[in-house]
Amino acid sequence: MSEEVELQSFILKNGFIWGPEPEIYGGTSGFYTYGPLGKLLKNNIENELRKQLILNKFYEVECPTILPRIVWEASGHYKGFNDLVIKCSKCKKVFRPDKLIEENKGKPEGMSKKEMLEFIQKHHIVCPSCKGRFQQKIEEATLMMKTRIGIDEEAYCRPETATTTYLPFQRYYDFFRKKTPMRVFQIGKAYRNEISPRQNVLRGREFTQAEAQVFLTQEEKNNYKEYEEVKDLKIPLWPYKEQKKGKPKKMSLKNALTKKYLQNKAYAWCLGITYTSLINLGIPENKIRFRQHYPKERAHYALDAWDVEVLTPTYGWVEVCGVHDRGDYDLTQHSIKSGKKLVFEGKKKPHVLEIAYGSDRILLSLINIFLEKEKERIVLRLPSHISPIKVSIMPLVRKDGLPQIAKKIYADLREEFIINYDETGSVGRMYRRMDEKGTPYCITIDYDTKKDNSVTIRERDSMKQVRIKIKDLKETLKKLIKQEIEFEKAGKKFN
Amino acid sequence: MSEEVELQSFILKNGFIWGPEPEIYGGTSGFYTYGPLGKLLKNNIENELRKQLILNKFYEVECPTILPRIVWEASGHYKGFNDLVIKCSKCKKVFRPDKLIEENKGKPEGMSKKEMLEFIQKHHIVCPSCKGRFQQKIEEATLMMKTRIGIDEEAYCRPETATTTYLPFQRYYDFFRKKTPMRVFQIGKAYRNEISPRQNVLRGREFTQAEAQVFLTQEEKNNYKEYEEVKDLKIPLWPYKEQKKGKPKKMSLKNALTKKYLQNKAYAWCLGITYTSLINLGIPENKIRFRQHYPKERAHYALDAWDVEVLTPTYGWVEVCGVHDRGDYDLTQHSIKSGKKLVFEGKKKPHVLEIAYGSDRILLSLINIFLEKEKERIVLRLPSHISPIKVSIMPLVRKDGLPQIAKKIYADLREEFIINYDETGSVGRMYRRMDEKGTPYCITIDYDTKKDNSVTIRERDSMKQVRIKIKDLKETLKKLIKQEIEFEKAGKKFN
Repeated sequence: MSEEVELQSFILKNGFIWGPEPEIYGGTSGFYTYGPLGKLLKNNIENELRKQLILNKFYEVECPTILPRIVWEASGHYKGFNDLVIKCSKCKKVFRPDKLIEENKGKPEGMSKKEMLEFIQKHHIVCPSCKGRFQQKIEEATLMMKTRIGIDEEAYCRPETATTTYLPFQRYYDFFRKKTPMRVFQIGKAYRNEISPRQNVLRGREFTQAEAQVFLTQEEKNNYKEYEEVKDLKIPLWPYKEQKKGKPKKMSLKNALTKKYLQNKAYAWCLGITYTSLINLGIPENKIRFRQHYPKERAHYALDAWDVEVLTPTYGWVEVCGVHDRGDYDLTQHSIKSGKKLVFEGKKKPHVLEIAYGSDRILLSLINIFLEKEKERIVLRLPSHISPIKVSIMPLVRKDGLPQIAKKIYADLREEFIINYDETGSVGRMYRRMDEKGTPYCITIDYDTKKDNSVTIRERDSMKQVRIKIKDLKETLKKLIKQEIEFEKAGKKFN
Repeated sequence: MSEEVELQSFILKNGFIWGPEPEIYGGTSGFYTYGPLGKLLKNNIENELRKQLILNKFYEVECPTILPRIVWEASGHYKGFNDLVIKCSKCKKVFRPDKLIEENKGKPEGMSKKEMLEFIQKHHIVCPSCKGRFQQKIEEATLMMKTRIGIDEEAYCRPETATTTYLPFQRYYDFFRKKTPMRVFQIGKAYRNEISPRQNVLRGREFTQAEAQVFLTQEEKNNYKEYEEVKDLKIPLWPYKEQKKGKPKKMSLKNALTKKYLQNKAYAWCLGITYTSLINLGIPENKIRFRQHYPKERAHYALDAWDVEVLTPTYGWVEVCGVHDRGDYDLTQHSIKSGKKLVFEGKKKPHVLEIAYGSDRILLSLINIFLEKEKERIVLRLPSHISPIKVSIMPLVRKDGLPQIAKKIYADLREEFIINYDETGSVGRMYRRMDEKGTPYCITIDYDTKKDNSVTIRERDSMKQVRIKIKDLKETLKKLIKQEIEFEKAGKKFN
């Protein structure tokens, strides 16, 4: 079984991600369901990002996911958000010519449509599905999903949350009582009608973005108070000028500005808080890098762009976030199209810096990084504060009053944590089951519990056990989950 | 200014709800943005529902919002989810004939299309927009928003979360290790292409549902353990047989079963936990009623249905939740259409009970219920645990070191609560501003603070003040917000 297949069967079996949906009807590529454990994990990830953004003075908003065509004309998505496609003349299936060319060792970057067709003809590339010949034309297919509002208003599912966040600019300006910078974020769905969705939720057609936007004046980009809090933070930067020869280097943000790898303090701050948020999610330092886009690689709106990538065993480096200096592009476009003045202080054009996380990609990367196959067990070593289920309560046997005690403890703890109750097997098997689900602590109730009112806590990662009084359980678990105390000091050693 | 206009201008001005979006392009009916305060409130409401559902042993899932046509054919939405419409022959605008008839004192229920046309002709009803004559035909317009996946797969934005929750039935059955009842919920977007969206977010085209589903066997409906926990709960029931003559009556669920107002224990439990969750959101007891649908009023899938309604000053009784016994309708349909066996224990057809909350409706109802216009101030008396901003910190003056102390307190508290800092006006004006935003507590730092390390807490509702040591602030505020202590006992009385 390939590594990818193994990972996908793990997430499917354990209730993390199911699909492609609708499974019972055969499935449509790019659409998934988060099962009970996947959704708990996704909520924990999004709540951690939310908490960090709020502490960095961002306010959350929620904008429509469907907006009329005029919005996407202004943003540039209506004309510019396309993939090139080629159709098989026999089975009528559609493929991306750039992918076909890559698979045949060509370099599609910079090729014109004509050159692509010539390459396909010269290399006798045929339809991967039916071996039929391709049509002699390459077309553009929009990545946006079109719909209608009312009877006949053309509209599109948003391809990013960002544009929808920009539209209420004037409302923000009033809400923040004309103080800049204004910081706003949105966590929500976006849709891209990918021609070839792949790699599970890494490239789905429906996905969740957590996108933060800083609105500020051009001058504020280098007069940004909060920069002082992060300037000495060292993060692994890989500027485009270094990508041919060197590797990413850890350097302070201050240093990166001096070396002109970064253009302004506000942008440096964005990179700094992004790095901290990924560390707070538990991603190991040595598995993070910030890769700058080459100027020609940037999106149409970007003055500067860095991908934040995470190293996974199965998928290699995965882009989990992008940080973009969108300049004054978006608000200028919407101002022109709407005829509304969208400015600070009567005349200053708002610039926008954007931090765009992909929830789904962070989630799958975390599972991939922390999943370990040991000799005796499969264990998902997720950091305890983001683990879906924190604790499992299990009586040693199903008799002699042990289940009753266990159920009482379960009832006491369940207002505080997401917990599980299990009495359906041997303790060893119940431990293994929770190891796979990433549950950091198991509580066992045994015959001694009846004598000394103590229980055993078993730690997932070390498989060590300590003995602790029932009355101290809640507070101790709280501290363990927050990693405020060491496990071995949490109670009396126990074998 | 009408009451409704006043309410809408309040939510707009204070950053609760903006729209219809995209405002700068003129707006499209039925689409709104939750501004910073609205989104905080919406999260608090949804998290409270989430907490209650988890305590009642529901697991959350997240399913696609777009699914191919075959799913909606099976669910019955493809054919059955329509509004009747009539078009103006002059301006081509489209209206709902039932609404036109109602506005002209007719009773459209049960009328055929022909009878509707006759009524419109007889009463000389013309286009409300241009006074033109209507076309001589009534058509059906689907309420679903259509799109495409890939190049040519017909698909629809989901008109409810429920159907998407049913599809992974077999996955749940494995995940729950074949134990029933299985309880699952989903909080997410749904879309209805309403012909005439109105009443702000009460009837939007994009909205959020929090829908909980219980999958169980027919026998389990009257053998439902958790019923015992709620059977004595008294809730205001209005069975359809009593709706002509009587008013809703508070009665215990047990009593309602005996009187055959309710058909089974599991359904009674659903009503019970729904009532408790609305009480936990702070909705006053006397503003809640459960209204049963008349048999002919029920949706095509429902064996029994009760609307849960909340009394608001502006909109009257608002349906904020529906509880449905969907019988075995959904899984039978999907089983037939997919050819998959979707059963318990090899043969038993799964029944489904559903609790379907509308987040947006709860939110707007809460604002409407708790908004009060007093002589001297506008005050939003939201319960403190769901208020968007819990505390505002304000120095009495902007000098003599008071802002520094205030900022230190702000920094200490902001990891714990959503709080605000303000130093931009007189204390009186700052209080008023927070009253409108529903902030239950304000902290003032004054000259005495420098001497005695104490601050003043001012309560929104009573406008009373107490004096308290800075070191006790965090714990006291926690208790106040959870309503664990009385305000006047929280500190030394202060004028």
